[in-house]
Amino acid sequence: MSFIEILGFVGAFLSSVTFIPQVIHAWKTKSVGDLSLWMIIILLGNVSTWLTYGIYLHLRPVIVANSIILALALLMLYFKLTFKKA
Amino acid sequence: MSFIEILGFVGAFLSSVTFIPQVIHAWKTKSVGDLSLWMIIILLGNVSTWLTYGIYLHLRPVIVANSIILALALLMLYFKLTFKKA
Repeated sequence: MSFIEILGFVGAFLSSVTFIPQVIHAWKTKSVGDLSLWMIIILLGNVSTWLTYGIYLHLRPVIVANSIILALALLMLYFKLTFKKA
Repeated sequence: MSFIEILGFVGAFLSSVTFIPQVIHAWKTKSVGDLSLWMIIILLGNVSTWLTYGIYLHLRPVIVANSIILALALLMLYFKLTFKKA
């Protein structure tokens, strides 16, 4: 595997797991007041676009990474909308 | 411009601006307790990796988008570390 391929895999892996600590943090504290709803909304648009891009060009790492981020973004949106009312 | 090129530009644009609302939110409220420090740290690793990838392969949109995200992530780290003590 070349240097650039390894770099791409590391980047895709780190991108996929970026929001895991945030989801765990929100779940544990049940507090999401400091999270920007607009960040979550734009993130949903951003990953949906890259997911479409990946599916269109059959780029498996792009599809996998963005599917994971999409799931995490949807969880953050759910937390933001439900914990807010608590 | 082809459909896939437009999609790539939209994705790169949305990726670049994703964290702008979060930075503004943190700056206005001076409150970052609900932000995960680990999310910010992994985000820094993630964009640094993609920035290196973009520079290595001379991918201008990748370089531009990740430079902007890197600056926003550094701002979030700064806010997280300073507002925490207030």
